[in-house]
Amino acid sequence: MSLSFRVTHCDGRARRGELSTPHGIVQTPAFMPVGTQGAVKAVTHQQLLDIGAEIILANTYHLYLRPGDELIARRGGLHKFIGWHRPILTDSGGYQAFSLAATRRIAEEGIEFRSHLDGSLHALTPERAADVQARLGSDITMVLDECLAYPSTESDAQASMARTTRWAARGRDRFLELKRSTESAGDQAKARSTNPGQAQFGIVQGGVWRHLRALSVEQTVAIGFEGYAIGGLSVGEPIGLMYQTVEETAARLPSDQPRYLMGTGTPEDLVECVSHGIDLFDCVLPTRNARNGQLFTSEGRLNIRNARYAEDDRPADPACLCYTCRTFSRAYLRHLSLAHEIASATLNTLHNLTFYLDTLKRIREAIVFGSLENLRREHQQRASRPLLDPGHR
Amino acid sequence: MSLSFRVTHCDGRARRGELSTPHGIVQTPAFMPVGTQGAVKAVTHQQLLDIGAEIILANTYHLYLRPGDELIARRGGLHKFIGWHRPILTDSGGYQAFSLAATRRIAEEGIEFRSHLDGSLHALTPERAADVQARLGSDITMVLDECLAYPSTESDAQASMARTTRWAARGRDRFLELKRSTESAGDQAKARSTNPGQAQFGIVQGGVWRHLRALSVEQTVAIGFEGYAIGGLSVGEPIGLMYQTVEETAARLPSDQPRYLMGTGTPEDLVECVSHGIDLFDCVLPTRNARNGQLFTSEGRLNIRNARYAEDDRPADPACLCYTCRTFSRAYLRHLSLAHEIASATLNTLHNLTFYLDTLKRIREAIVFGSLENLRREHQQRASRPLLDPGHR
Repeated sequence: MSLSFRVTHCDGRARRGELSTPHGIVQTPAFMPVGTQGAVKAVTHQQLLDIGAEIILANTYHLYLRPGDELIARRGGLHKFIGWHRPILTDSGGYQAFSLAATRRIAEEGIEFRSHLDGSLHALTPERAADVQARLGSDITMVLDECLAYPSTESDAQASMARTTRWAARGRDRFLELKRSTESAGDQAKARSTNPGQAQFGIVQGGVWRHLRALSVEQTVAIGFEGYAIGGLSVGEPIGLMYQTVEETAARLPSDQPRYLMGTGTPEDLVECVSHGIDLFDCVLPTRNARNGQLFTSEGRLNIRNARYAEDDRPADPACLCYTCRTFSRAYLRHLSLAHEIASATLNTLHNLTFYLDTLKRIREAIVFGSLENLRREHQQRASRPLLDPGHR
Repeated sequence: MSLSFRVTHCDGRARRGELSTPHGIVQTPAFMPVGTQGAVKAVTHQQLLDIGAEIILANTYHLYLRPGDELIARRGGLHKFIGWHRPILTDSGGYQAFSLAATRRIAEEGIEFRSHLDGSLHALTPERAADVQARLGSDITMVLDECLAYPSTESDAQASMARTTRWAARGRDRFLELKRSTESAGDQAKARSTNPGQAQFGIVQGGVWRHLRALSVEQTVAIGFEGYAIGGLSVGEPIGLMYQTVEETAARLPSDQPRYLMGTGTPEDLVECVSHGIDLFDCVLPTRNARNGQLFTSEGRLNIRNARYAEDDRPADPACLCYTCRTFSRAYLRHLSLAHEIASATLNTLHNLTFYLDTLKRIREAIVFGSLENLRREHQQRASRPLLDPGHR
């Protein structure tokens, strides 16, 4: 079985759909919790299932370096190795090679980098990114792309986009070649996929230049993938420019294939970008912020370490039904955070992920009922209200 | 409702019983997971309930310093504040004031110490230990005792034991005074218990000197408490001397009251000391070792970081039915530990606590069936077998 996507309802440009993968169905629009090293930080897989997570993201860069894609393939692939039997999307490793590696050098062939763990030298090419993800056996893989810093000049953005397109063609060729060799059970020398139904998404780049994004869509779609991601956003550009780029880019992508906005964003960003036709999201905000004590709530964001919560017996979010909000007070959550208890990371993460997954659930319901615009206005108003804790956006 | 204890079965000197507290019944012999700051490290209360924990221990020293016993009392007591509605035992704070405080000075009045958090100066007296625990509202409180380092001279042990007895009398007076004032809802200036059914245990000291232990039992029992603890063991003395001291001391304690061996020990220690008549245990071993990658299993101890587990698809303990062992391989647990994932602490802790609680469950069953001696021999053999990982006891 391989990837299939079916749009069941539309509301303006927003789509309600079902993404079928070899490891089950994902209701879209969907949010993917980030499980960098094969575990979503501070929660168990069972807790993820309990709060309704249907798909997680894992990072190829980290897993390639430790414990290694070949070890994971020998264990039967990533699903078996980590004991998560639902869908998994893996990135290409490129973004982390750009941002985390000790040193890195980019050439036409690919990215040469030194591991942030032990300084060892590695080469990540479009072909190797496909090979590694084949061994991991994720349900959705990503092509290697070049990630440009913001701001950049138009000519840098143009050159980077063009290279991303060339890498996409090479990555696709390798992906299809691997698929054939996996199916024919032939060539032992080549990497074999541990998931024959694996899909591959292309990535649209082009910075914030409309014509570059349009050209990137055209060329990437011409190569042909099972789905398309919008990359290179949420990297520091003004929020209005991000929304505009998403709107214009999404509108050009094939209407019958899934669209994935990489690395975004706040709950408001999610509602806004769904209204422009995005189907998939991932972001470290709910998990990372949880570990720093920042909670997303129906009343706005709050930092649980704030002294004002020292004697506050209310739940973090009175409107939330997660385990944390059903069981614990802000006063206790504050204590746990200040005392550096591991339970603080766990309980805050459970709440924040529940808030994100519930937001997506409300989004899906709103699309079915044709009321997404109301939900969008509600989120805009919340975002523009004075915050519970000044100093936190 | 206050504390009551009923022995239902005996097997030699081992006792199977039920300890009734204001927050529910504890099946004894019982192991108490340590929740130092009001949370058992790396697991949620729900996970503790799921694996069968019936009572937890919290540390008075930590909670007194942060968030403070008065804040906790204003929240309605420790059970309400932390959202754990089963029995809680609190220690007196003495052991941590001796071992954790930045500086400390011991006098007849009590212990003067500087906080390890901010260097602030505090005085812990037998009266104050009772006051603080009354505010916390734990079900079982402990008197302040003097903790002697091992080895010590006989005269030091004698002096320390005598002081502990004097402190026990002062602590008991204050406890009873608080109980009266709580019941009569009178004096507002005094500390009031947030748990009117609170009990207090005395602590037997005397190092490894038989006659000092005997005298300590005699004098502590003469003061009269709801239960008795054996303190000052597992502090570095040879294991045989520890067992012998427990055996001789427990035999002198009242047969109709609970006996608590403080801060002990390995699974083998638990079986051994139950056979000498101990009813309650606490120890950081299962939780602390879990965070360092050491797992207790039916096949012996193993350190999951060992390279030999890199490609081991078996569960940590094939005989264990905990979530960790039902779901994950040693290879994945090793990866999580080496990658410093928070899930490593959680999954290892879940397993180790399950192993301890299951050991106690088997102990209770063996007492009912009169077969504890078989279980004890089984554990002795396991402890004497070559270990899975050389270098770990």
